[in-house]
Amino acid sequence: MLTNPRSDRVKAVRALSRRSVRSRSGEFVAEGPQSVREALRHRPDAVRDVYVTPEAADRHPAIVDAARAAGVTVHDTAPEVLAAMVDTESPQGLVAVCRAVDRPLDEVLDGLPERALVLVLTHVRDPGNAGTVIRGADAAGADAVVVSDASVELYNPKVVRSTAGSLWHLPVSVGAPVTEILDGLRARGVALLAADGAGTTLLPEVDLDRSHAWVMGNEAWGLPEPLRAQCEEVVRVPIHGHAESLNLAMAATVCLYASAGARHPDGRGDTPVGTEAGSDVGVGGRG
Amino acid sequence: MLTNPRSDRVKAVRALSRRSVRSRSGEFVAEGPQSVREALRHRPDAVRDVYVTPEAADRHPAIVDAARAAGVTVHDTAPEVLAAMVDTESPQGLVAVCRAVDRPLDEVLDGLPERALVLVLTHVRDPGNAGTVIRGADAAGADAVVVSDASVELYNPKVVRSTAGSLWHLPVSVGAPVTEILDGLRARGVALLAADGAGTTLLPEVDLDRSHAWVMGNEAWGLPEPLRAQCEEVVRVPIHGHAESLNLAMAATVCLYASAGARHPDGRGDTPVGTEAGSDVGVGGRG
Repeated sequence: MLTNPRSDRVKAVRALSRRSVRSRSGEFVAEGPQSVREALRHRPDAVRDVYVTPEAADRHPAIVDAARAAGVTVHDTAPEVLAAMVDTESPQGLVAVCRAVDRPLDEVLDGLPERALVLVLTHVRDPGNAGTVIRGADAAGADAVVVSDASVELYNPKVVRSTAGSLWHLPVSVGAPVTEILDGLRARGVALLAADGAGTTLLPEVDLDRSHAWVMGNEAWGLPEPLRAQCEEVVRVPIHGHAESLNLAMAATVCLYASAGARHPDGRGDTPVGTEAGSDVGVGGRG
Repeated sequence: MLTNPRSDRVKAVRALSRRSVRSRSGEFVAEGPQSVREALRHRPDAVRDVYVTPEAADRHPAIVDAARAAGVTVHDTAPEVLAAMVDTESPQGLVAVCRAVDRPLDEVLDGLPERALVLVLTHVRDPGNAGTVIRGADAAGADAVVVSDASVELYNPKVVRSTAGSLWHLPVSVGAPVTEILDGLRARGVALLAADGAGTTLLPEVDLDRSHAWVMGNEAWGLPEPLRAQCEEVVRVPIHGHAESLNLAMAATVCLYASAGARHPDGRGDTPVGTEAGSDVGVGGRG
């Protein structure tokens, strides 16, 4: 049992709350049962250590078993030690130190299927928005997520948490300049669709029955004009009432689900219905 | 200029941060330029007082003019006095005390058009979620929002803020028991569609070409079984990737926009394109 909140090990985990340390070490922290479970389920190779309090180990035996089965060291950890490892008020007794899972841009783009659906995030600043949109892309069946160097960092703990595990579910590339991303997509025949409140094309008018990427910009001011000009269409979600706009996560989800609808008109998904014992079922569902 | 942060007037505004005081007085507080502008634009009759710092008055002359034109008293207010009125860290120099705008359930239901789109919220606990979903309902062109007595209070400052003005845009009823709400809708021929991750009907399978209401439940556990049983269909948003679910606001927005798509297949909305000078344009758009 780890009982010393001032040990070097605890300090090393705690230091991962700093971006510079994450970037130097290539490691980051996943907090809470959902994140840790999804990391172990989808990318066990990328999990280095799991820290668990006695109470959380009792509550989530399947997570502890999965970690051990994957050859990941599980550290029994006193609650006050776990609390010293992270900023979060309630990591629910479970923390994993993970290796970065992003891949080089070209590798991600070369791996796209023939009729691809891609999400590009650039100039997105709010961690919760970025994570929520990645979760939406996963749910809509996107083939890849690409985050530009001008966006909030993927391994920010708030981004990781708000992806609700989706970070480990689909190929992600981070850190390339946005023009390189757009050029790479265009070179591979992926149509670039900017989602922006200033768009002149309405979402229902767009041809989504082809390889395409949704390019999402800043929460408040959208996409810079030079980037809009590089996209084939600048698309806006129609507003039928008196609302001025949708927020980024809502607009992105509506766009991504329009794409999903074009790919799967009957709504049947690619994912077999599974039993997600103990998971937050939420208000979407497996289809 | 109001300069005394300890005056009775300031204390009275401050007291509206308490639910009991709001409920007794029938008043609540709108914070920030977007909320205050939308209140004055759509429900000037419901705005009692506007408090504005000199800096905010310089930055938002149109809001101050609109208040005066509506016969609302505008109080020049020192920044430290405004800060003492609200909990928010940055009300951006503008606060309005407003009268409650909800209407009795029967009045809202009797006012529904022939082919209605309604949002029902029940057991929703998070203020940000509730407000965001109301904003989504407005954007999707819903005809009314009904919030049950088992939900977070509509006039909670965080709900008001996250509606981004939509609170004043469409008829809202609050405080009725959910069974009374569902009975009232059913009696008026409005089909009840529960949105729930445990649903057996996929969203693209549902007939949305009729009067219907989306019934949204709790963020974590959805709708209680007795309520699901009262709905004609229990609908889930298809999940195509490995995500376990969508969060409440995302699922609600996807459902509401599916309804909007059934009503306006070409995406053209009911709202004329307006100039929204100085407003946060965001990533949706007027259509």
